[in-house]
Amino acid sequence: MGKRFDLRFSKHSIGIVCRGSSDDVLLAKRLHEHIKSLRDDITVLVDERTARKLHVEGCDIGDIDADFIICIGGDGTILRTLHLMRKTLPVLGVNTGDLGFLTEVQPENAFDVIAEMLKMSRCTVEREERLSVRIDGNDHIPYAMNEAVIITAKPGKMLHLAIFMDDEEIERIRADGLILATPIGSTAYAMSAGGPIVDTSVEAMIIVPIAPFKLAARPIVADIDRNISIKTLSEKEVELVIDGQFYRRISSDKRILITRGEPAYFVRVQEYQMRIKEKLLQVC
Amino acid sequence: MGKRFDLRFSKHSIGIVCRGSSDDVLLAKRLHEHIKSLRDDITVLVDERTARKLHVEGCDIGDIDADFIICIGGDGTILRTLHLMRKTLPVLGVNTGDLGFLTEVQPENAFDVIAEMLKMSRCTVEREERLSVRIDGNDHIPYAMNEAVIITAKPGKMLHLAIFMDDEEIERIRADGLILATPIGSTAYAMSAGGPIVDTSVEAMIIVPIAPFKLAARPIVADIDRNISIKTLSEKEVELVIDGQFYRRISSDKRILITRGEPAYFVRVQEYQMRIKEKLLQVC
Amino acid sequence: MGKRFDLRFSKHSIGIVCRGSSDDVLLAKRLHEHIKSLRDDITVLVDERTARKLHVEGCDIGDIDADFIICIGGDGTILRTLHLMRKTLPVLGVNTGDLGFLTEVQPENAFDVIAEMLKMSRCTVEREERLSVRIDGNDHIPYAMNEAVIITAKPGKMLHLAIFMDDEEIERIRADGLILATPIGSTAYAMSAGGPIVDTSVEAMIIVPIAPFKLAARPIVADIDRNISIKTLSEKEVELVIDGQFYRRISSDKRILITRGEPAYFVRVQEYQMRIKEKLLQVC
Amino acid sequence: MGKRFDLRFSKHSIGIVCRGSSDDVLLAKRLHEHIKSLRDDITVLVDERTARKLHVEGCDIGDIDADFIICIGGDGTILRTLHLMRKTLPVLGVNTGDLGFLTEVQPENAFDVIAEMLKMSRCTVEREERLSVRIDGNDHIPYAMNEAVIITAKPGKMLHLAIFMDDEEIERIRADGLILATPIGSTAYAMSAGGPIVDTSVEAMIIVPIAPFKLAARPIVADIDRNISIKTLSEKEVELVIDGQFYRRISSDKRILITRGEPAYFVRVQEYQMRIKEKLLQVC
Repeated sequence: MGKRFDLRFSKHSIGIVCRGSSDDVLLAKRLHEHIKSLRDDITVLVDERTARKLHVEGCDIGDIDADFIICIGGDGTILRTLHLMRKTLPVLGVNTGDLGFLTEVQPENAFDVIAEMLKMSRCTVEREERLSVRIDGNDHIPYAMNEAVIITAKPGKMLHLAIFMDDEEIERIRADGLILATPIGSTAYAMSAGGPIVDTSVEAMIIVPIAPFKLAARPIVADIDRNISIKTLSEKEVELVIDGQFYRRISSDKRILITRGEPAYFVRVQEYQMRIKEKLLQVC
Repeated sequence: MGKRFDLRFSKHSIGIVCRGSSDDVLLAKRLHEHIKSLRDDITVLVDERTARKLHVEGCDIGDIDADFIICIGGDGTILRTLHLMRKTLPVLGVNTGDLGFLTEVQPENAFDVIAEMLKMSRCTVEREERLSVRIDGNDHIPYAMNEAVIITAKPGKMLHLAIFMDDEEIERIRADGLILATPIGSTAYAMSAGGPIVDTSVEAMIIVPIAPFKLAARPIVADIDRNISIKTLSEKEVELVIDGQFYRRISSDKRILITRGEPAYFVRVQEYQMRIKEKLLQVC
Repeated sequence: MGKRFDLRFSKHSIGIVCRGSSDDVLLAKRLHEHIKSLRDDITVLVDERTARKLHVEGCDIGDIDADFIICIGGDGTILRTLHLMRKTLPVLGVNTGDLGFLTEVQPENAFDVIAEMLKMSRCTVEREERLSVRIDGNDHIPYAMNEAVIITAKPGKMLHLAIFMDDEEIERIRADGLILATPIGSTAYAMSAGGPIVDTSVEAMIIVPIAPFKLAARPIVADIDRNISIKTLSEKEVELVIDGQFYRRISSDKRILITRGEPAYFVRVQEYQMRIKEKLLQVC
Repeated sequence: MGKRFDLRFSKHSIGIVCRGSSDDVLLAKRLHEHIKSLRDDITVLVDERTARKLHVEGCDIGDIDADFIICIGGDGTILRTLHLMRKTLPVLGVNTGDLGFLTEVQPENAFDVIAEMLKMSRCTVEREERLSVRIDGNDHIPYAMNEAVIITAKPGKMLHLAIFMDDEEIERIRADGLILATPIGSTAYAMSAGGPIVDTSVEAMIIVPIAPFKLAARPIVADIDRNISIKTLSEKEVELVIDGQFYRRISSDKRILITRGEPAYFVRVQEYQMRIKEKLLQVC
């Protein structure tokens, strides 16, 4: 539970990234002006696409360095931003999407929340675990914030997989695929496949098969410091999907290694209990 | 439970279809000789591919007319044969595959079972329900013996579907896909996705979402005489998969209608209870 | 799906049963007057307890003979009334309880629905399956409208049970208990224990273990004409519970036989699809 | 994963506790002699009941102080011993029961394992989390090694419960009961009720409802340092069951508080992966 900490601002800059719809761009503009009106000593860095629409100078997301990044959109926007960031900066998600499991504030509250943060020159940040995925040792694959999915490249045709924990085979399974989720991802795809809801304070990785053709298959909650590896036992091609955003086709002879990755950081204004309660109501 | 009946033979012919591996072709040859040795008044019709290997005259599967068809292989062989048959003839499945949910006898028992059938000139046949799938009214889609699956064409990206029962919308769901299974298919893909085991005597269709992003989603067992239809609510392309064998890409504006199809017929030598017990042990 | 039929009234009498709260008694009084104002040739038979409160002559529930019985309360009221009725009369459930899976109309609609029924001198009735439970052959156990439950008499201590289908053992299981539900009961206790939703047009019995200590355990949907019997393999005492209302302690050497019972009849004004959709929203 | 450590022996004494069947007593006798033959400087402390049968001097389980305690029997024996121990000593479980999730060695291997331990004067010990249960603040309730269960005192009648995490209500649920399990208990009752398998290295508490009458109910894996409390919302009496051994009837106005307890310690000779794999095969 020691995952929350106090962050004092020191960089005198704030990033803004947005999804690009006209409403979102307008909100970005208003938040930009809001910050400027409160603290003119702060530089606001805007992602290039949004910057063009606002007629200001833009910045590559990978180059942004700031006390925190305001992300306007839904979960997809946050996930893509995390994949593109090169420095791991705290994210404040402003929800303008349908479902917002990763976002923290609604647009109408964003102004007050940011004003308070600037006034105090600090905020509460939560460290959230991510997973590292490597294929035969190497590769430029982004960290998984929600989940890494190993799934049949041919819908409707099962994979045959072996799952290893610290080099010991723990299970063989025929299934559409396999999800390896973080606690924060436990309410995303892993939940759809029957996984439990996992408190983000728990240092764990959740392993959930998708449609397993095996009566005894169950979700497994493993220590996040385990090395999990996956081997395909059939010759079918496999799709690796990170956070529903990043795709990579993998040939059947490759071994996929999943381990603890570098964490991500989120600005938090709500307690975990309230966030989870509210968010689950969205998917009843 | 009145699904079993006594079939008296009248056609003086038996079909043989096999998967094509050399072991299976050898078994086909031995069964062919076995039948000939017992009853030389019976014509044995062999599928073309197998016939070439046995150096006998072959017959298109669609043209076979016989008292019953011996199908040598696994479930896939039976499913493909059913899709190709134009007359609905009883199938006797001889299991040479891994899993044999649809097969009825092991190779070592096939000789005695067939001898008994020929001696009595009759057998017990069970009627098994199949599903008819139509897309916007028309189309040459084979009946589903196990299941019709409507699944995302892009693995890892959910579909958004509306399910209608007799023209009333009963559910909206985000999911990888949706399975519409027969009772006999309840131990196949539908089981993997969390569906119940359904007695083949029950006249029902089983509707099971694959990885539904909806906590309240549950498998539904509907009367087989209901008209079920599925509409996609997003613009994603959909793959229709019948029995894991037949694929058809469907654009998102089409409506898919599932209704009771023509039944299939299986030669039965075991009681339902024993078949199900034995078969489930295979997928523990 | 041929479970709905048209019932012409011939008995010139209507029964009213109610739960006994003052609100329910008041509603009973108003419905009594409503019927009398519409058709003075109709006798209204009121259950004894309610009759005392209304200062009219009462009638034992078991003795009521009428074209239909109006049942005011929640599901419990209907279940108790069905257990007490000696003639199987159609029930119109008027919902004044929390959850109303068995009730058909809300109090505010009851007046119009009844007026229409009396005007036409007919109504639509649906036949709903019930289960018969016998212990070693005999016994005065009411038919199960929702479910028969065989459950450990000592909470927290598992039973060890063998399940037979038409005298063949199909499964052995350690579990808190076992539910044998009707389709109408598929949205009650059976659903809590993980069973599927079963269309009331399907002629089936749903067998669902409660907390099975067996990874391979799954709900089974059996033909309602199967004979299911249950044997306890441990020496623990067992509680038989019918519809959450009727309790009977059973010693461990007894065999419990579950078969198709006499159906019950419900007045229907809504389609199945709408009823199920609306009712499931109550238990999200 | 830093839950395993090396324990150097210093107490020159070993405890033996057994279930009391004649086979178990005989094994206790042989292990007693085995230890004495290897190291006559070691005192062997035998529980009183077993001691009487072996005609040696016995010792109250609560008074045993030793480098470790050999527990002969099944999981029940270990659980009862843990409830009775006043010092928290490492347990080596020798499995003579049906299921042995907590036991570590089979009788035939116990002799070699103990010889090795005595020769090295050390062993590997794993710390396993337990839960503390308090009712309105106080009470002599043993720590839960597997799980604490809050269950209806009347089988078949649901409880209505509110679950609080760190004083925030996170869920209201109607259910037969609620399980709060440790990771080691994740393969016991919690698994029966649909919970995930949780790596014993994960510092978590698993919250699983038993037969919840709520479609959206899911198992929750909470940080073990959370304070979980349960309030009954109906007036029904509740049974508290610890590890299937300890029972306490609780009136409906009491609040039950579950927090991290003192850990237990087990002698380990196998890796987690192998233990879990082997043990799950027992409950297919």
